[in-house]
Amino acid sequence: MEEGNSVGRMEKQFAFIKEIDGLKKIGRQSYLKDGSRKENDAEHSWHLAMMALLMNEYANEKIDVLRVISMVLIHDIVELDAGDTYAYDEAGNATKRERELAAAERIFHILPEDQAKYLYDLWEEFEEAVTPESKFAHTLDNIQPLMLNDATDGKAWREHQVKLSQIMKRQIKTKEGSESMWEYARENMLERNLESGAIILD
Amino acid sequence: MEEGNSVGRMEKQFAFIKEIDGLKKIGRQSYLKDGSRKENDAEHSWHLAMMALLMNEYANEKIDVLRVISMVLIHDIVELDAGDTYAYDEAGNATKRERELAAAERIFHILPEDQAKYLYDLWEEFEEAVTPESKFAHTLDNIQPLMLNDATDGKAWREHQVKLSQIMKRQIKTKEGSESMWEYARENMLERNLESGAIILD
Repeated sequence: MEEGNSVGRMEKQFAFIKEIDGLKKIGRQSYLKDGSRKENDAEHSWHLAMMALLMNEYANEKIDVLRVISMVLIHDIVELDAGDTYAYDEAGNATKRERELAAAERIFHILPEDQAKYLYDLWEEFEEAVTPESKFAHTLDNIQPLMLNDATDGKAWREHQVKLSQIMKRQIKTKEGSESMWEYARENMLERNLESGAIILD
Repeated sequence: MEEGNSVGRMEKQFAFIKEIDGLKKIGRQSYLKDGSRKENDAEHSWHLAMMALLMNEYANEKIDVLRVISMVLIHDIVELDAGDTYAYDEAGNATKRERELAAAERIFHILPEDQAKYLYDLWEEFEEAVTPESKFAHTLDNIQPLMLNDATDGKAWREHQVKLSQIMKRQIKTKEGSESMWEYARENMLERNLESGAIILD
């Protein structure tokens, strides 16, 4: 590779790394475990990567750990442009796909073409949730907010008056990535919040 | 594995994942690129993992990418107890090692023994900075704040009246992980901040 090309390549990569700094300001609905504030996409993505690193043994199918970690690290980058859509916001979810596709097109193409394609395809794989890696990534993405909600005695659930039926609809595929993690979450993160009334039994 | 053991194992892993949520509240000295606030350890770790994913081609030596990503994801976990020590705080740096060892002992042992050992050893490998993976991880850890400082026209450097000699001392091993990234950083992140006076030429 010529030096001129190499410098241009690194410049694009640093431009992308700088661009995604913005993910630190995209807020989510889950509170930190101490309830002091809501988490952001960068923090959430790091937290999922830690789960992927330490809990991959529970995946239903054999998975490539590096691929899962890469996927969760990048899965919310489209929210830089498209914003975070709350799981129970029906209107927002209706236009989510279109907004996220445009975002993926713009943001990933800050990178050199080969890496733009790699991240775009990895994000699409996550979105389609068909491969073992993407199913497990979704399991992590679905369970991490349950864990934080449980840690705050259901603070975000109470604020949004979330019903069990909404949670179960949202979590319908969680077990496809990991039966054992879903079972643990149901028993240890949902049941006591139903008993306490943080989640509405409906 | 018996079910009783398996549940106990997962309980420890979730306890650890919940414990490290605290990293989202450990502040660092680098500002976000828009200068609005400083970043925290969770965000910083995610940002380094993205750099490891996309810029590993610049490592001086052949590296295991999953190992580098794992290392940067966990490298600041000890700061949960030990706090972030600013690079140019001499008094803080004198007791840093001792505080961090105690933190590693406590925090990593929330995990099942095999994983506690794995993360402890991985953190020690990072600290020792001898292997190709740990050298490259340090390169990322050193360059990411330069990038953010440059993006804010040297805001944190100005506030701390940082001298070039302090930066060069801090960055003395950055090139050991990647000559080309260090060269890029020097030319594109340091030189113009010397010209502007954000970094004191001393």
